[in-house]
Amino acid sequence: MNAPIPRILLTGFDPFGGESINPSWEAVRALHGRRIGGHRIVALQLPTEFAGSLRMLKAAVREQAPAILLGVGQAGGRRQLSIERVAINLQDARIPDNAGVQPVDEPVIAGGPAAYFSTLPIKAMLAALHAQGLPAEISNSAGTYVCNHIAYAMLHLAAKRRGMRAGFIHIPYLPVQAAQRHGSASMALADVVRCLEIALRTAIATPVDRRLGAGALD
Amino acid sequence: MNAPIPRILLTGFDPFGGESINPSWEAVRALHGRRIGGHRIVALQLPTEFAGSLRMLKAAVREQAPAILLGVGQAGGRRQLSIERVAINLQDARIPDNAGVQPVDEPVIAGGPAAYFSTLPIKAMLAALHAQGLPAEISNSAGTYVCNHIAYAMLHLAAKRRGMRAGFIHIPYLPVQAAQRHGSASMALADVVRCLEIALRTAIATPVDRRLGAGALD
Amino acid sequence: MNAPIPRILLTGFDPFGGESINPSWEAVRALHGRRIGGHRIVALQLPTEFAGSLRMLKAAVREQAPAILLGVGQAGGRRQLSIERVAINLQDARIPDNAGVQPVDEPVIAGGPAAYFSTLPIKAMLAALHAQGLPAEISNSAGTYVCNHIAYAMLHLAAKRRGMRAGFIHIPYLPVQAAQRHGSASMALADVVRCLEIALRTAIATPVDRRLGAGALD
Amino acid sequence: MNAPIPRILLTGFDPFGGESINPSWEAVRALHGRRIGGHRIVALQLPTEFAGSLRMLKAAVREQAPAILLGVGQAGGRRQLSIERVAINLQDARIPDNAGVQPVDEPVIAGGPAAYFSTLPIKAMLAALHAQGLPAEISNSAGTYVCNHIAYAMLHLAAKRRGMRAGFIHIPYLPVQAAQRHGSASMALADVVRCLEIALRTAIATPVDRRLGAGALD
Repeated sequence: MNAPIPRILLTGFDPFGGESINPSWEAVRALHGRRIGGHRIVALQLPTEFAGSLRMLKAAVREQAPAILLGVGQAGGRRQLSIERVAINLQDARIPDNAGVQPVDEPVIAGGPAAYFSTLPIKAMLAALHAQGLPAEISNSAGTYVCNHIAYAMLHLAAKRRGMRAGFIHIPYLPVQAAQRHGSASMALADVVRCLEIALRTAIATPVDRRLGAGALD
Repeated sequence: MNAPIPRILLTGFDPFGGESINPSWEAVRALHGRRIGGHRIVALQLPTEFAGSLRMLKAAVREQAPAILLGVGQAGGRRQLSIERVAINLQDARIPDNAGVQPVDEPVIAGGPAAYFSTLPIKAMLAALHAQGLPAEISNSAGTYVCNHIAYAMLHLAAKRRGMRAGFIHIPYLPVQAAQRHGSASMALADVVRCLEIALRTAIATPVDRRLGAGALD
Repeated sequence: MNAPIPRILLTGFDPFGGESINPSWEAVRALHGRRIGGHRIVALQLPTEFAGSLRMLKAAVREQAPAILLGVGQAGGRRQLSIERVAINLQDARIPDNAGVQPVDEPVIAGGPAAYFSTLPIKAMLAALHAQGLPAEISNSAGTYVCNHIAYAMLHLAAKRRGMRAGFIHIPYLPVQAAQRHGSASMALADVVRCLEIALRTAIATPVDRRLGAGALD
Repeated sequence: MNAPIPRILLTGFDPFGGESINPSWEAVRALHGRRIGGHRIVALQLPTEFAGSLRMLKAAVREQAPAILLGVGQAGGRRQLSIERVAINLQDARIPDNAGVQPVDEPVIAGGPAAYFSTLPIKAMLAALHAQGLPAEISNSAGTYVCNHIAYAMLHLAAKRRGMRAGFIHIPYLPVQAAQRHGSASMALADVVRCLEIALRTAIATPVDRRLGAGALD
């Protein structure tokens, strides 16, 4: 009998903030079912809701027991793919989530540590993207909305489960969204999908991250 | 005997400012020879040189006698395709051009008017791009370097030649360039090419521009 | 009998776009009556209205016959004092003016030239501000709203009146405005007033501008 | 015998990155010796060095036993005063520090938690600044250079010392610095000093922070 193929759980979100699409789900679903570096990708759409997304994430992690957990979210206004370095134990919502809830200064996980660092090889992923001519950067904040919430939750789950690594990537608007927003930056869907594929391949091939400078002065 | 097919002269520039490619030439050459709305596109690479580009432009206009003149140039840092509304009679070079010349506060054409407005239907072009979900904006300054120089020169030539219309479009970095510049916005080549094609089709189909608001407060 | 003291007509605008103050008027009125380089400053508040501002400007120019006309306007979001190089013969209003009028693609002066360059010594003014440690830049677009409208009108009036020079300066939000707008840049009122004073002194002392590079690539 | 006056240890940095001044030290030293809300301010200049700043900070905390520790640092390019919410246990230096050391992906304190949240009332401080018309924002990243290093170290020290609270504030360039950097935002020194004074008064008067939304979507 064969060993089961290890899973990658790749999550995107449904639209929020008045948008009719969310580029994170568009990119993530394009990779659903894809086999990559000996792993099978399972794409999952989370609701842009604090409570609902956490509930669904936990159930999926239990069911899939993935080797890699990668969350993807829309960061409207960013100009490049942003590989998040850290997630913080905090909810501070500028707008209500899709369930109408707007927490202020509440923890993601009561009693959890203040933050978790990504356990994916973010510097190796950055280097691999740049080597392929794809625009990406390391980000030191995933915000305080549902994206950071899920990024923190993923890393919290990964901290308790040996062999599971986790991380989060923010992506710009799609061109079709930027066409409705005077002056916004965007990134083509095909390029985002290619970035995610390269990032995942690199994560699989890199158990220990490289030490490459990618700091921010402030 | 058939009438000759009217021409579109579509210009891009060679790389400058330490770049190894110029997205304007990459986009423009992809359209060379293409037949569009009953016109034939002739792509021309201009040098990023004040004097050299003007000389080459004049010769090409004489030879091709195009119905439409569209200049395209790189605007590193811009986030969307920028349809230029106006070009001014001024050279003020922040860096030397590719011939090492760096004019300060000199006219493009001695004795020419202070500025020309684009004679392409910029509002109709903008609306057509937005309708296709492509991010674009009207710009009220083409700068004071070689791009504005050529934009002005094209409009000056068009002012003297009945039946020739002219305009200029600035485009962002390509993703491969943004990958080397921390935080820069970019636009996929295929999307830029599609934008130019739509812009040209719209120009051909629109003898008189639509009146659509696209103003800047400052 | 003494010769009359030559006048500087210095204009600001009333608040618009939902603001309760306009920094241009705050700065300009602080200089009203001041004597500077042998000239007397007359401050004038213009309404943020296309038609009304032009009418009031013309009357004031007739009455004061100023040697120097300097318009000042708010450019919310800009980070430094912006000395405008050029004004264009175009109205394209993104929002209605304070009289509820919203012109699209209409000229400021029917039959006027496409643009006028500032006739104040913008490079000498820039150099003087930098020498005093004040943040300023040359701008190549005053937009397409009431500021550009008045800038163009001033230069049009100056073109017809020997001995009158004109120009326009855009200024950032005040700190008190930025406090209500997440992330906006601002500039302290005292620094803006000092900038205007230095700019005017330099204009008086500099009949012919210096040739200093301050170009924009795009 | 009188009880000793409680101390506020207020730190700034020396210049780095080619600058000849550091606005954080200019602002901080203006408050040295000032008595505020029953506390005495002690200003301290730290070197922009990872090791050196930490050594000096520890010695000063031991000596002064302050009730409040507030670090201030330059964030060139930011447009408003930034009250930092969190500091992370990471050094990733984009440029060498003033001792020539450039750590990559090393912890501030080996074995320390991933992050600390500020223990000053950041939302109350924000509200007090806005109420005074001063432009300020909450920031969710203090970067990965010496500022974040000191912010983390302060919070680490505060975590072990009952009754000591700590936090960090980033400030924009001064106008004199922005005058040398095309397009940079800045903030007047007097306004920065006033902000720091209000922030400290609010910290003293607010043992438990208010719950006010000031979140970031990403």
